[in-house]
Amino acid sequence: MKTKKIFLSEKEMPTQWYNIQADMPGEMLPPLHPATKQPLGPDDLAPLFPMELIKQEVSKERYIDIPEEVQDIYKIWRPSPLVRAYNFEKLLDAPVKIYYKNESVSPAGSHKPNTAVPQAYYNYKEGVKKLTTETGAGQWGSALSFAAEYFGIELQVFMVKVSFLQKPYRQFMMNTWGAKVVPSPSTLTESGRKILDEDPDSPGSLGIAISEAVEMAAKDENTKYSLGSVLNHVLMHQTIIGEEALRQFEKTDDYPDIVIGCFGGGSNFAGISFPFLRKKITENKNTRVIAVEPESCPKLTRGKFQYDFGDTVGLTPLLAMYTLGHQFVPPKIHAGGLRYHGAGPIISELLKDKLIEASAVHQLESFDAGVKFARSEGIIPAPETTHAIAQVVREAKKAKEEGVQKTIVFNFSGHGLVDLAAYDQYLSGKLHDYSISQEEIEKSINSSKVL
Amino acid sequence: MKTKKIFLSEKEMPTQWYNIQADMPGEMLPPLHPATKQPLGPDDLAPLFPMELIKQEVSKERYIDIPEEVQDIYKIWRPSPLVRAYNFEKLLDAPVKIYYKNESVSPAGSHKPNTAVPQAYYNYKEGVKKLTTETGAGQWGSALSFAAEYFGIELQVFMVKVSFLQKPYRQFMMNTWGAKVVPSPSTLTESGRKILDEDPDSPGSLGIAISEAVEMAAKDENTKYSLGSVLNHVLMHQTIIGEEALRQFEKTDDYPDIVIGCFGGGSNFAGISFPFLRKKITENKNTRVIAVEPESCPKLTRGKFQYDFGDTVGLTPLLAMYTLGHQFVPPKIHAGGLRYHGAGPIISELLKDKLIEASAVHQLESFDAGVKFARSEGIIPAPETTHAIAQVVREAKKAKEEGVQKTIVFNFSGHGLVDLAAYDQYLSGKLHDYSISQEEIEKSINSSKVL
Repeated sequence: MKTKKIFLSEKEMPTQWYNIQADMPGEMLPPLHPATKQPLGPDDLAPLFPMELIKQEVSKERYIDIPEEVQDIYKIWRPSPLVRAYNFEKLLDAPVKIYYKNESVSPAGSHKPNTAVPQAYYNYKEGVKKLTTETGAGQWGSALSFAAEYFGIELQVFMVKVSFLQKPYRQFMMNTWGAKVVPSPSTLTESGRKILDEDPDSPGSLGIAISEAVEMAAKDENTKYSLGSVLNHVLMHQTIIGEEALRQFEKTDDYPDIVIGCFGGGSNFAGISFPFLRKKITENKNTRVIAVEPESCPKLTRGKFQYDFGDTVGLTPLLAMYTLGHQFVPPKIHAGGLRYHGAGPIISELLKDKLIEASAVHQLESFDAGVKFARSEGIIPAPETTHAIAQVVREAKKAKEEGVQKTIVFNFSGHGLVDLAAYDQYLSGKLHDYSISQEEIEKSINSSKVL
Repeated sequence: MKTKKIFLSEKEMPTQWYNIQADMPGEMLPPLHPATKQPLGPDDLAPLFPMELIKQEVSKERYIDIPEEVQDIYKIWRPSPLVRAYNFEKLLDAPVKIYYKNESVSPAGSHKPNTAVPQAYYNYKEGVKKLTTETGAGQWGSALSFAAEYFGIELQVFMVKVSFLQKPYRQFMMNTWGAKVVPSPSTLTESGRKILDEDPDSPGSLGIAISEAVEMAAKDENTKYSLGSVLNHVLMHQTIIGEEALRQFEKTDDYPDIVIGCFGGGSNFAGISFPFLRKKITENKNTRVIAVEPESCPKLTRGKFQYDFGDTVGLTPLLAMYTLGHQFVPPKIHAGGLRYHGAGPIISELLKDKLIEASAVHQLESFDAGVKFARSEGIIPAPETTHAIAQVVREAKKAKEEGVQKTIVFNFSGHGLVDLAAYDQYLSGKLHDYSISQEEIEKSINSSKVL
């Protein structure tokens, strides 16, 4: 009988993260201080992050040891299974082998705890008593709630108000793990109060929530700030996904021709793809690596490479990256985790150097793929994850047209059990696509120009 | 470093279910026809079930082969991990080793697909085009939706109206897998219309929903009915859980002194415990096996052993079992899966023969244990599952008082991600316990007396 899941034992779990900065052929531009516009030093970041994470952010070491305490918590759900999607293959009726790395098996239901746990750990080791963070749809906030609770760190989450109201289950999940959650804009910070003064009905945005979380951390020396994507150290923590997948492929006769991940700030995409990119760079493996973004937030396919802020208000360092402009407000698609204006420095450099490709899909195409996947493979994907699946469908069609055999792996970044209202809306015909004109994009990029 | 999860490879997955009817020392009383009150023959059940399941219901064979097609689908999530709960042990600070069998890893999030898949399969093999079923909180309905969709069988789910309104996510999940769901009582059946005529605002009950599902199946020869617990064949399909656990314990130096499962109709409890009971009966293993029910629906601890109907209206066969009376309406605790009046024939006989023990816990004690577990082990348990965890806490305290070392295994029957509103109510102090007087129980039992 066919083997469906390829497991690693806990003893086979990788004990190091992979730092792609060691192998990148292109040189990244340095982050700049938001006020002076000069290259940033470690001390500039110290009020916000523990020193170990600042070191990781700029490290050129190829591998960084995963602390034993972190490995121990990873083992609650790791190693995650690599699964052959036989039934989905059958449905697509194309000459493709499809594998997915199932990151939905974590307590929070996504890949986010892979970095939430080490971030909480390093803060704990450096005596931090309280963390702040922002969250959109809530995947990141719930992962950090679980991790902070584990190390006895207090957590204040600023959740974008519109999501806070739409997705009460995420809030309950964070509360169950002991975190405090407020809708943002809130009255807890100056940034929040100022915005509420101007517009008491503000629905909030990720940019506003970041400003609130950063402000609260900066004002108290026992409080630090934690981010769930974009930054180099965050992406590196996620590489445990691809390192496991490499070892799992060694147990099969296959090696992927195509690696696919959905793309918001880059954390799940980096997690699955960076170890395969190492093989591509250092061993000349001929692997296509594809980041899939929503058509309604197309920074990789239609954005511009320039210095930009990570938040709307302009409190974060300036990063050299593909961006739609830090004031860009993406339409309200259900894949909340993909609604971010910038691509981060590493991913942007990789795209510029043509080591990765980018693709964009509309919401309806992605839900169509998600429902097909749920009905054939059983598992209901998160709205974000359905974007990766839509690209798998496209690649399968292409392989069929071209009559070539392909092996595809994609990152099943999370399940959709707390996003079922989105499926209900899709199935009852209430969802639609959002098209953005080139004019709108250029206007946003130009008006957000900093340098 | 300590190993947390004990995995089996797919090749090590058991290929047979265990039928405890082969080893029970006590003789069960036969089911009786609801009208004639005479022992039931296979033909009486043929309008509702496919012949293979009727055979399994009365079989005395010790082991029954799991069809290859069913094994193939099991592999979407099986073998499930056996996990050592080190962090929970540390929190309880008692001389206990605690293991849990994690059944929450299935697509529907619980153990229910273990029987949904073979039931859908046997119906498919016998040419059945449509199935009906009832569901309370929705765990069973969603598991059968997934399984029916897989085999191309149409499914009509009657969902207790109060749950339908309270738990929209479960309904969306069933829709995503292609099932039709109506709130019960509905206008689709005579039973439903009659109840709506009398009370247009009826909140529904599991009993009413069973009547509707049975009526619809009985009236159409291409339609059969499917039940998620109580019956012998259903309990048997779940024994894959305990069979895996036995093999997983062989990979450790441990063997459980105590086996614990929460108890509603018996399916998850039977699943984890029957294989250990075989060892107890045939190899004199000294294992305590404990079924944990809610104090608000205490059929095992305070019910009476007598013939009773499986539904409120009285359409099902009469079963000899511990019961609170088929007209008993349990208080609205959040553990909807445990709100059933009867214990089924096998479990009842095992309790009478003192092969198993029963225990009852209140809602607040169970949520307290559930939150402790979520905060130490990461995974948020279903409200049903928290009852098993509360009993683990009790046994740990007892072991500490007595100063003896114990090894405990419990069935983590499902996660609570679709029940997070219940946690919100618990954490904000809005839940309370429900005490039922002996007088109420006796009144219900006496008024439901059939023979």
